[in-house]
Amino acid sequence: MNVQSIIRNLIVETPSIPGNLAKVATAIGTIGGDIGDIKTMKIGTLSTVRDISCTCADIAQLNQIVDAINNIDDNIHVRSVSDDVMKAHEGGKIHMTSRIDVRSLSDLRRIYTPGVANVCQEIQRAPEKAHYYTSIGNTVAIITDGTAILGLGNIGPVAGMPVMEGKAVLFDQFAGISGIPILLDTSNPDEVVETVKHIAKGFGGILLEDIGSPHCFEIEERLKAELPIPVMHDDQHGTAVVTLAAVISACRYAGVELKDAVVGQIGLGAAGLAICRMLMAYGVKEVCGTDPQESALVRLRSFGGTVVGSVEETMAKCDIVIATTGVSGLIQPSMVREGQIILALSNPYPEITPEDAIAAGASYAADGRLVNNVLGFPGIFRGALNANVKSITYSMLLAAANAIVDATRNGDLVPHPLDPNVHKSVAEAVERVALIEMAHID
Amino acid sequence: MNVQSIIRNLIVETPSIPGNLAKVATAIGTIGGDIGDIKTMKIGTLSTVRDISCTCADIAQLNQIVDAINNIDDNIHVRSVSDDVMKAHEGGKIHMTSRIDVRSLSDLRRIYTPGVANVCQEIQRAPEKAHYYTSIGNTVAIITDGTAILGLGNIGPVAGMPVMEGKAVLFDQFAGISGIPILLDTSNPDEVVETVKHIAKGFGGILLEDIGSPHCFEIEERLKAELPIPVMHDDQHGTAVVTLAAVISACRYAGVELKDAVVGQIGLGAAGLAICRMLMAYGVKEVCGTDPQESALVRLRSFGGTVVGSVEETMAKCDIVIATTGVSGLIQPSMVREGQIILALSNPYPEITPEDAIAAGASYAADGRLVNNVLGFPGIFRGALNANVKSITYSMLLAAANAIVDATRNGDLVPHPLDPNVHKSVAEAVERVALIEMAHID
Repeated sequence: MNVQSIIRNLIVETPSIPGNLAKVATAIGTIGGDIGDIKTMKIGTLSTVRDISCTCADIAQLNQIVDAINNIDDNIHVRSVSDDVMKAHEGGKIHMTSRIDVRSLSDLRRIYTPGVANVCQEIQRAPEKAHYYTSIGNTVAIITDGTAILGLGNIGPVAGMPVMEGKAVLFDQFAGISGIPILLDTSNPDEVVETVKHIAKGFGGILLEDIGSPHCFEIEERLKAELPIPVMHDDQHGTAVVTLAAVISACRYAGVELKDAVVGQIGLGAAGLAICRMLMAYGVKEVCGTDPQESALVRLRSFGGTVVGSVEETMAKCDIVIATTGVSGLIQPSMVREGQIILALSNPYPEITPEDAIAAGASYAADGRLVNNVLGFPGIFRGALNANVKSITYSMLLAAANAIVDATRNGDLVPHPLDPNVHKSVAEAVERVALIEMAHID
Repeated sequence: MNVQSIIRNLIVETPSIPGNLAKVATAIGTIGGDIGDIKTMKIGTLSTVRDISCTCADIAQLNQIVDAINNIDDNIHVRSVSDDVMKAHEGGKIHMTSRIDVRSLSDLRRIYTPGVANVCQEIQRAPEKAHYYTSIGNTVAIITDGTAILGLGNIGPVAGMPVMEGKAVLFDQFAGISGIPILLDTSNPDEVVETVKHIAKGFGGILLEDIGSPHCFEIEERLKAELPIPVMHDDQHGTAVVTLAAVISACRYAGVELKDAVVGQIGLGAAGLAICRMLMAYGVKEVCGTDPQESALVRLRSFGGTVVGSVEETMAKCDIVIATTGVSGLIQPSMVREGQIILALSNPYPEITPEDAIAAGASYAADGRLVNNVLGFPGIFRGALNANVKSITYSMLLAAANAIVDATRNGDLVPHPLDPNVHKSVAEAVERVALIEMAHID
């Protein structure tokens, strides 16, 4: 799967006469461009200049769109095409910032020598105080080996850095967490585990990110077992939490009882398998799955799932189908069963479009555009750090999924990712479960 | 060496009558407390409240000071003693911050999926673009194993975190560099080198910090040899740069020609040896040293220095003496030679106080209170990152030392560490030399 879409900003000048923006929008839409924000930059007596954000399949389509706008009439012009995505990344998206202004010698003596020595000695005496007097307890390492960056595949950790920085941005903005990208130059599980263990003392949690399958399984399992801080592979469990929330909402709209339904997973990569496990943890009695890889089927069986022979068979057998294959158009409309719930989550091109699925008889259908991990990981880690837990359990993840469902507006599949309440709700739900679990252990 | 001093803030109420602050200051000074900033918190008709920052040897001395103030007369009271050092550290001193506000779906799509995929692909195609479109080129890892934290010794990396965060604060505030503390749970050179190499791709430079001797030597040498980015052990070369600057200034005031002088180093730990090497790089023809450790003497010889048998012999032989032993009062006034320059740098208690050294005949003397690493490392790394160099050379370090000398006001030993010009000058000097050296290589 390759992510083809590009985002550009078109600076378009039209006469200041109503109806011209509609002409421009029509030109863009006809060619297949997807319009985002439109900002009015200048309203003059004669002409109006707008900045139109536009998602296109590729540069060729972008050029067609520019030509189409320029050809509407002599008074409508694309004045400039800017790449705001690249601009937003100039110099990187994150910076390690001092929380204290150093404006005087006294400030310097407080935060550095000699004052700092006292804080060091205090932590030496009582190591748990590091939680209060350092940033460790609020810091999560965002660790990748670059082997499975978005849908782009094994492009290496440096090319994956913009994604890691994006995660750090979202940690900061949605959960107040300090996220530190760590780029590993090795994918060998022994070396990864060894390296992460050697640096783990500086972090309150570990987010594993865009690490390929199957080595992601061993790496996550070993780190979870060997480190006393929360470790979560977002592409597995973060995705599974948000997907479970979407499935619960979809079932409500379709009037289906999720726990009693037969759920089928088409595609058993890291995300697919994690979704199966999350559904079972939620209480779904029968979870099926299919995948061309024999090793994925072995894993599914080991988690308690049922192996199904093919896509067709899965579609025939299951009440709810979740596809995470990366294969556009894999599900034929003829395979769809009357009343089925279908979530075809591959981005940007789903296994079947919601429109086709509904037309073929599905009672509810969605694609993966809205099922965004950002709804999960910031709040999950906020809650886990708040409770100072040693690991993130399925109970916490299920609480996170339910919190996402509760924050979803009626009719929507998931909440708006910029709704601050959803992150707060997820954090609170995780923290609450964590505190109950810790009380039981004590 | 143990750092004994503590900093506390005394909230003192006095009648609003001139002369009372003098009484309070006298009480503090008589007992040996060192007054820092004084802030007037309230001026009332009857009483005035001040926040007095005070450095004391220990809690016992602090209590004596509080009693002394309370006993001045019935109208002068210490209302509260606050620990602003601990307060400044609450929650940690640093946070990884987004450089971009995510306020709309368009923002989210630019900095995260789907927009970010374009940036990843651009870097995959042209890896050097990571320098422009990620934070890597502006990020320095601050790496410690916690074996030599300040003068506190081997207190472990977590207890050393406040120092690492302090470095990150100074990187941010004085050089705009994103500094990332990395706490290693191993001191084994093989494991340290392996771990740092595995995570190095995420950084534009490596600052080794508070790593003990002798393993610091092997770790630094191997990382310098094996990594394509600048690596510097601050306790060696950062200290040596600032010390060289201080020595150059001291020689000017004493009318001594440094290059022709015999320089003696008492104490050949990591800092002492690095100062010897820096002096030789500067052009000093004869550098002597003494240390109880045979291995340190072997190292000194290997760098081209002359071994001297004792402290007494060093004092007798050398025109300039630099002491970094951590042993308070090691240099007896009787050892001082007429006209000698003496820098007794151990903190907080020097090998000989400047007053005693001058009284004994030294032409210039100073202790280590002002010789602060903060004058060096931010600008050195700023210059190195600006020039995108693969390593920091002695030419760059000498340029940094000269820039510090040039920024020193006449009569001072070194510049004020909060003078922004010194950091800018150091950065420019390093960058200039780096660009010349790179032009010669090409």
